Amino acid sequence: MKLVGQLGEDGLIARVCGDLATSSQVVVGPGDDCAVVGTGEDLVLLKTDAVVAGVHFLPDEKPDRVGWKAVARVLSDFAAMGGQPGELLVTLALAPEVSVDWVDGLYRGMNSCLARHGGVIVGGETTSLPSGTPAMISVAGRGMVTRKNLVTRSGGRPGDSIYVTGWLGGSIRGKHLDFTPRLCEAAWLVGNGAITAMMDLSDGLAKDLPRLAAMSGVGFKIEREALPLSKGVGIEQALGDGEDYELLFTSSEEIGERWRERFPDLALTRVGCLVQGTGEAIDGGWDHFRR
Amino acid sequence: MKLVGQLGEDGLIARVCGDLATSSQVVVGPGDDCAVVGTGEDLVLLKTDAVVAGVHFLPDEKPDRVGWKAVARVLSDFAAMGGQPGELLVTLALAPEVSVDWVDGLYRGMNSCLARHGGVIVGGETTSLPSGTPAMISVAGRGMVTRKNLVTRSGGRPGDSIYVTGWLGGSIRGKHLDFTPRLCEAAWLVGNGAITAMMDLSDGLAKDLPRLAAMSGVGFKIEREALPLSKGVGIEQALGDGEDYELLFTSSEEIGERWRERFPDLALTRVGCLVQGTGEAIDGGWDHFRR
Repeated sequence: MKLVGQLGEDGLIARVCGDLATSSQVVVGPGDDCAVVGTGEDLVLLKTDAVVAGVHFLPDEKPDRVGWKAVARVLSDFAAMGGQPGELLVTLALAPEVSVDWVDGLYRGMNSCLARHGGVIVGGETTSLPSGTPAMISVAGRGMVTRKNLVTRSGGRPGDSIYVTGWLGGSIRGKHLDFTPRLCEAAWLVGNGAITAMMDLSDGLAKDLPRLAAMSGVGFKIEREALPLSKGVGIEQALGDGEDYELLFTSSEEIGERWRERFPDLALTRVGCLVQGTGEAIDGGWDHFRR
Repeated sequence: MKLVGQLGEDGLIARVCGDLATSSQVVVGPGDDCAVVGTGEDLVLLKTDAVVAGVHFLPDEKPDRVGWKAVARVLSDFAAMGGQPGELLVTLALAPEVSVDWVDGLYRGMNSCLARHGGVIVGGETTSLPSGTPAMISVAGRGMVTRKNLVTRSGGRPGDSIYVTGWLGGSIRGKHLDFTPRLCEAAWLVGNGAITAMMDLSDGLAKDLPRLAAMSGVGFKIEREALPLSKGVGIEQALGDGEDYELLFTSSEEIGERWRERFPDLALTRVGCLVQGTGEAIDGGWDHFRR
């Protein structure tokens, strides 16, 4: 009997998505940063994302930071499609021994992230977990994107440059909790550059870039020496640590100069290019089920 | 230090909803069966709902039935607002020792419910839980409702009759897993009757009716002898067992006769009426955090 721990995260997702029905409303189904639905020029982004104590945050972490992260992860996915946050639902799955103060802190963090970046909480759910079970906070909801601004993972073409924002690796030192969802940057990119494909970096470049390339039906070449390393971090960490929540995108133009004019304080680095065929493989990156 | 187990589910929800921001898109915020967003005649319903092993289903239950329940609960909430299902996202939080066969069965059940009642799965997420942790399946997504068909919990008026569909109590014997979300019935009700308020019965009439009455700013009187009891079930169970997933609604008209013409196979029972003031209290019903 095969276990999900043996199948791995991508294998599990591929398996459950194999038999799904679709409808005329579905513009982008499973496999991208968000699902996209609608029929007109104004499309809806649908996203759900969860954080679990002991997996995505330490059980003794400050709840404000956990709340920020839980919401910012979803906002980062709206950004990755070229969209903006709308209304969110929050599911709290908590053991009864969790303190009310902790929940208050969690919501302070969530509301603070939304006040800064847009979006409102319109509902959700609470459910009890058996005593001793790690807390889980799941955030779902909708974002908005116009059809002309929509960017998926699948539009990359051979010859496109591969870019990443910010610095990669070492997020465990704190950035995985207090990162900035790149909504402004993504909005500028879809309005001003020939962006062909985009996603956010949640599992590490080594795992996420092959996903983007596979969805685009192309290969890639990475210039490892060019990778923008966070302070004190090596190339392997930059490739594999994950939880950078930076934008990974491809473009048929050289956009570095215009970027630096608009966002002088945030690095933009060309890390390689898309190529025909299967390109190279990178080892590393985070898998939720393999250990 | 106060714990969520001492605060109770309604207390916890009231607390976290106290400080929420809102926006011009929000038609109905927290507290109803779904959130409602949008500005035109076609509104969007947003809903998230989770089932947890050991809480909502037995760990050795057939996964097909668990999948059906996980999806049908959300569809039942769309029905309760007068709407229809759209696109859903599924979050699987699983320990690595869960079998792939179990996940296959879960999706069979979910897809089977959607094929019968409408709606498609467009994405979701998988996350690992520590070994030994109970499985959690969270379903979120959007439904559709026209502004004229929208029914909330808050429109009940003194003098309205209180109705319930089907039979109450004893759902633990199996109905909590294989119930029919009352989408057809709700669609007919919002199109054909003067429905003033509606919700679905998930926590038991004793807990859900006071919620509807409170949202409507009225009291209620229940005729206990009139309650439609499931076979072999007493009044206390009908009030308190929960997970009936029947419609509870109020109407300013006597609609029993027209109902019986349209739905001859499903009971509709007038169980009381709304009154001015605070009415009576009922004990019982399910609370996720109090034990």
